[in-house]
This record gives sequence, structure tokens and C-alpha cells, in this order.
Amino acid sequence: MNAPNQSSDLAPVDARISGQRLWERLCAMAEIGATAKGGVNRQALTNEDTRGRMLLLEWATARGYQASIDPIGNLFIRRAGRNPALSPVMTGSHLDSQPTGGKFDGVYGVLAGLEVFETLDDYGVTTERPMELVVWMNEEGSRFPPPTMGSAVAAGALPLAEALAIRDVKGADVASALQAQIVALPPLGQRELGIDAHAYIEAHIEQGPVLENETCDVGIVTGIQGLHAYEIQLIGAEAHAGTTPLRHRKDALVAATALIARIRAAIVDPLDVLRFTVGRFEVYPGSPNTVPGKVTFNIDLRHPDAAHLLGAGDKILQLCQGEIEGCPISAKVLLRSTPVSFDARVVGAVRDAANARGMKFRDIVSGATHDAKYTAQHVPTGMVFVPCEKGISHNEAESARPVDVAAGAQVLCDAMLAIMSA
Amino acid sequence: MNAPNQSSDLAPVDARISGQRLWERLCAMAEIGATAKGGVNRQALTNEDTRGRMLLLEWATARGYQASIDPIGNLFIRRAGRNPALSPVMTGSHLDSQPTGGKFDGVYGVLAGLEVFETLDDYGVTTERPMELVVWMNEEGSRFPPPTMGSAVAAGALPLAEALAIRDVKGADVASALQAQIVALPPLGQRELGIDAHAYIEAHIEQGPVLENETCDVGIVTGIQGLHAYEIQLIGAEAHAGTTPLRHRKDALVAATALIARIRAAIVDPLDVLRFTVGRFEVYPGSPNTVPGKVTFNIDLRHPDAAHLLGAGDKILQLCQGEIEGCPISAKVLLRSTPVSFDARVVGAVRDAANARGMKFRDIVSGATHDAKYTAQHVPTGMVFVPCEKGISHNEAESARPVDVAAGAQVLCDAMLAIMSA
Repeated sequence: MNAPNQSSDLAPVDARISGQRLWERLCAMAEIGATAKGGVNRQALTNEDTRGRMLLLEWATARGYQASIDPIGNLFIRRAGRNPALSPVMTGSHLDSQPTGGKFDGVYGVLAGLEVFETLDDYGVTTERPMELVVWMNEEGSRFPPPTMGSAVAAGALPLAEALAIRDVKGADVASALQAQIVALPPLGQRELGIDAHAYIEAHIEQGPVLENETCDVGIVTGIQGLHAYEIQLIGAEAHAGTTPLRHRKDALVAATALIARIRAAIVDPLDVLRFTVGRFEVYPGSPNTVPGKVTFNIDLRHPDAAHLLGAGDKILQLCQGEIEGCPISAKVLLRSTPVSFDARVVGAVRDAANARGMKFRDIVSGATHDAKYTAQHVPTGMVFVPCEKGISHNEAESARPVDVAAGAQVLCDAMLAIMSA
Repeated sequence: MNAPNQSSDLAPVDARISGQRLWERLCAMAEIGATAKGGVNRQALTNEDTRGRMLLLEWATARGYQASIDPIGNLFIRRAGRNPALSPVMTGSHLDSQPTGGKFDGVYGVLAGLEVFETLDDYGVTTERPMELVVWMNEEGSRFPPPTMGSAVAAGALPLAEALAIRDVKGADVASALQAQIVALPPLGQRELGIDAHAYIEAHIEQGPVLENETCDVGIVTGIQGLHAYEIQLIGAEAHAGTTPLRHRKDALVAATALIARIRAAIVDPLDVLRFTVGRFEVYPGSPNTVPGKVTFNIDLRHPDAAHLLGAGDKILQLCQGEIEGCPISAKVLLRSTPVSFDARVVGAVRDAANARGMKFRDIVSGATHDAKYTAQHVPTGMVFVPCEKGISHNEAESARPVDVAAGAQVLCDAMLAIMSA
């Protein structure tokens, strides 16, 4: 328990977060799993992930916060309130990273939450409701797909047993990797699965260029765009590159490039809000002197508006029928996740906090998915974004400025206090 | 040594090859590296390639032929002649295959050569000159690019040390893979690098549709079309698929598809003689939710006319400068091989042989490249083609009829005997 040396619940103090402490902690955490190129590799349930959690627990224990863990490995750190019967105001994010990840994605939201707790301690603020900081297990999904695994299980969107049985490429399953982590961590309270909070606010780097381009201090996140994922396959006919006249070919690569051009033209969005990406594109047999007999590629399609996304997705499926350049096309729907709108009161509390601090801000829809997508299914949810350099993320070059990192934590602090009594 | 039971050099016998034996051997060889779809995967210097060579050596040893290997792994099988001081009449091809290759490409030329030797044994024919059957190392170049590696090194067109240092995608180099094969094979004589023969005649399936369409028994190959090989690279910027607006992207995949479309439009050939193929196309990092930061692809370009080929190649290099869709382009010339014309006397011997057997034949320029391209730089060279089903090759469905396979071997036999004294 923290022992406030000054009680000021009724006469609010101007609790100012420490940008320096927050930055130092970000730097300390970035040493765990640090890569030669300045990023981090701290994938879920690896030794590095365990060491990251241990460091966080050290800091939390030094302040007397209580820690507990749920059956899928989500870690909760609780700062007590005056009324333990009330549901907590919650914040959090994740400590796991991409294999070539950066120093801010996820870790920033966790350490901003810790900074809020410590700031309130420093200013002797006791709150009516408890506050909780959650470290969601395996947000990235790079070792154990899918992403946002811990929050999905907590929200009931992914069965626990199914998640525990998922294996990495080396054959290790989540259950045993999680057990190994729990054994390595200091003793923790056991907690039931579920998301129970008065509100949830997550801080995160934007992972896009919008805030930086518009020189905003923070972004008020109004929701998360929807995501469709498709796998498209074209079947051609392998043939000798030297002997087969072009008009006799069924070239799956030529067909795939023509199909992508056709799709891009059909779904073009003058507002540039629709995100269309072909990130995986595989050509078989992949020999320089053989006409490709098969191409498989994935489409990642996102838009904040459900109807627009569905319309674009349907256009794609329509174009991925029949054949093109003599090659039959088939399409598989991997995922159709609808857009999420955050709670108006939580979004308002975040916006008011930025406004009251005189910051420059704008509303923004998250292009990336976050654990907040799953908390929003159960509790009023919002997010605050801070700019990151050139919008670069999922990349070892990911970077953010101390001043922006501090601004986001301050908004988080103010908004958590404001939503507490709302 | 073969011990002829009948000498008939001066009074020529009508030595008839055994179509049945040849077919059985083709079937036996096709079991090594056999794929579920009826093709073979016997890439150069793999275990399957080694097993293929071992089977051939078994057959050769049973007849008493001498085997030797040169420093790049070309395997030579020699049937002695009366005068060992004379240069041999040579035939051959390759046993390695594409990853999804067929039962005839390469292996047919090797086993047709063996069939010639055995036929001459069976008929008790002793020749003045020795005969040699060569199995060129790594004709396909699918595991270790470039193609026709063994013959290129033997011809002095590719330095030995350079070839030995080439690595496959897993990082293994030719030198160590070759060493592993040599250790696994029975002891072989060592042979110096070089191509020394009185003449070289290679039998091969056409790998195109011309002979079948015109119901020819064999094709008299007058030369090989020219081949340019290029490697093109586009550098984009990795970015998050959900957050990065399309107009801010440097998407290497979008750039590569636009570049290929531009190249295809620039070199379009109304006569459909020019062959343009992109068979290898690799996208990095290949994650469905990351905008591609790099694409590397290969261009295979062929034409029988040197000037036309050079014109098209130069247009490609012109288009592969600067940048496209924000992505800088770079181009590497891997190969610029001019069209080859075969030796008139050898071509004549092949044509005369087909004519004397009453076959239907036509002259043809090879669309595919062959090891004969390199032998032609040093010794009088020719080839004989047999039809293959629908011209399909570099494909597990590759097929040829026993009657055609036998006809080609007979022409090879007759032409080798004829050129011996020419």
C-alpha cells in the first residue's frame, strides 16, 4: 500500500507526471532484448519478456502495489483506492514486441500507466476507486499468432484452452511457455479471467505519420478501424521460359499483378483513408527460368467505417472469381473484424484533458489494432496516442520524443482522474 | 572395357537402339526424386542428384565403361575406341532437374547417350575414336544459379572459384555440396577442366510445341536463341499496413508490379518470338501486415536474333533506372548470352541420319538454353530434339512418347557414328 503524505481528493492538486522518470524507465526497459540496430526483440513468453515483467514488478513492488496474474498470463498491478468494492479505473498495454520491434510499441502504454500511479503517490493523491495497470499477454502475436491473444481470451473472444494449445514454429505451446514464465516470476496473486473496470484508457504511440505531420501533441483516439484479411490464389501452368510463346502461357505472376492492379483501381479512395496492403506474395516454383504456375498473396484491408470496409471487401471478392490471364482465381476470407467505436464519455475525458493542458490535438482513428479493441467489448474504453518519428513502427528504427511521451502520460493521468468520478 | 563379340567397323551393321531398354531406364531414373504429381525434384548436388548419378554409374560400370569427374563436378563416362590417342565423339546432357521438373528434361540426353554405347556393344561395334558421355553439373541452376554452370566452367566462361563460391538460399555453397556428393559416389578418376572432343551431339526433348504440332519425329537443331538474365531490385520502406496512408507509402510490391507492366508494354513483340519471363519474385519482409520494403525479381529474356534481343534488353535496362512509385530501382546483368549457331557438318550429320531412317523432321532453333551452348565454343556441336507432349516442360506433367524417345536415340547413334569418320 502506498501511504499518501498528503490527501487532496476534494481539493484537486495539479499532479504533474515526471517526463524524466518515464523516459529513464523506457530506456531501462529497452535494454531488455535490445538489438544491434537499436530496436528490441522481446517476443511474448520468451526469457526477455519474463525479464521485462520482472523489472516492472520490481518498480511496482517498491511502491507497494499489488500484482496478480490471470490464467492466460495477463499481469495486473493495482493501486488501491479508498473504496476497494468499487471497480477500478484501468490502463495498460503490452511489453512483448515484434522480432524486429521498437522501444515504444506497447511498453510506452505500460510505463505511462506506472508513471500515473507514481505521480499520484508523489502528490499524495488518494482516489475513491482503485486503479489498475494491465500488461496484456502476447499483443504482437509474432511468436504465437494471433495478435492481442491475452485480451481476446480475457474478453471471451478466444477460448482459453484454444489459446493455451497454440504452438510456435519450434513446437512449444503457450501453456508450457506461460508456465515457465510464471515459475520464473516472483509469487503473484491468482486472478480470474475477465475484464471488469469502470473504464479503460490505453496510451500508445500512433504508429502512423498523422500526428507528427500535423505537429499535434497528442491524438484523441475515437476508435479502431475494421480489418479484413484475405488470401488469394491464382493457378497458372508452369512452362519453360525459353520455349513457350507468351500467348500460349498461363503465367500466374502476370495474372496476379494484373489482378492487384484491377483491385487497386476498383477500390481507390480519394480520401486516402482505406488501407490496402499486399505484404505477403509468394510465387511458385520461384525458378528464374520457369513460368510461374501458382501465386498466393494476402490482402490486408482496413477502414474505420464498417459499410465502406464491407463494400471494398465485397468488391475484392467479386474480382477474385473466375479467371484472369487464363489463371483461375480463388479467395479465402481469413478475418472480417468490424470497426470499433470507443465510449463517448471516455473519449471526451481524454479530449478534455488535452484541451485543459493547452495541447494541440486531433481526433484520430487507430489504424493498428490494440488490446483496447477487446476491452471495448466489456467496459467504456478510450485511448491516447502520441506522435512517433515518421510514423515508423514494427521496425527497429521506431522512435518518439521525450516531450511527446510525457504529454501523453499527462493526458492519461488527467483523464483517468476525471473518468473516476464520471 | 567392353569386349565386342563381333567386329564390324568396315562392314557397317545396322545398329538398332533398344527403345524398350531406354524407356525402362528413363522410368527407373524417374523414381529418384519422384514427386506426388508424377514429376521429379532432383536439384543439383542434392541427395537425389547423387542417387541419380550412382544409378547411372551402376549401369556404366556393368558395361565396363570408365568414369571420371572434373573439378566442377561434370561426370564423364568413356567407351573406349581403337585409338585412345584420338579425341572422343561426345554426347551428354544433365541429370539435375527443376524443383517441379519432369522425367525427360536432361535425363533423356544422358540415357540416350548410354543407350548408344550399349547398342554398339550389343552389335559388337568397335569405333576408331573413343566415345564419351558427359553429365553436366547443374544445368538447371534452380538451387545454385546460374544455369549451365558445369558446362560454363568447363568452357572457361565462368571461373571455377566463382562457381564454387555460389550459395543456395540456405547458405550452402557449391564447393561443400559438391564435396559431399563426391564422397558419396564410388571412387572416380580425376579429370582436368576443359572441353576436348571431335564433336558433341546432345539429344533433348524440345520443351516447346513445334515438333508435336507438325507431327515431326525429330528436330534438327541449328542453334540456340540468345538469353539475357537480369536481376532487378526495388527498395521501398517497411511500414505498418494499418496506419500508413497509401500516398505516404513506398511500397516495393506496388512499384515492382508497375515496373513489370511498363517493361511488358515497352518490349511487346507482335510476332510472339521474344520470350519475357519473371519466374522468381521475392517480397521482403513478407509479413501480411507490413508494407513491403524490398522486392527482388529476375527477368529471363530470349530471342533468336542478336540485334532484337539486345534492343529489348537495353529497353529493360533503361526502364530499370531512377525510381518508380517512390522506390529506387537497380538492375544487375546476370547474363547476356548471344544466339549460337551450331556447326554445319554436325547439323548435317544429324539431318542425314534422320533422313536415312525415313523420319519426318524439320530444322529448329532451340528456345531453351543447353550445355551445347558452351560446347559449341570449343568443339563442333549439334543437337537432336524429340517432341514432348503439348510442349510442356519445367513442369511435373512433362511427357514424351516412347516412339519419339527411341527415334531421337537412333538419330543420335547414327549421327555419332557418321561424324566419327568425318
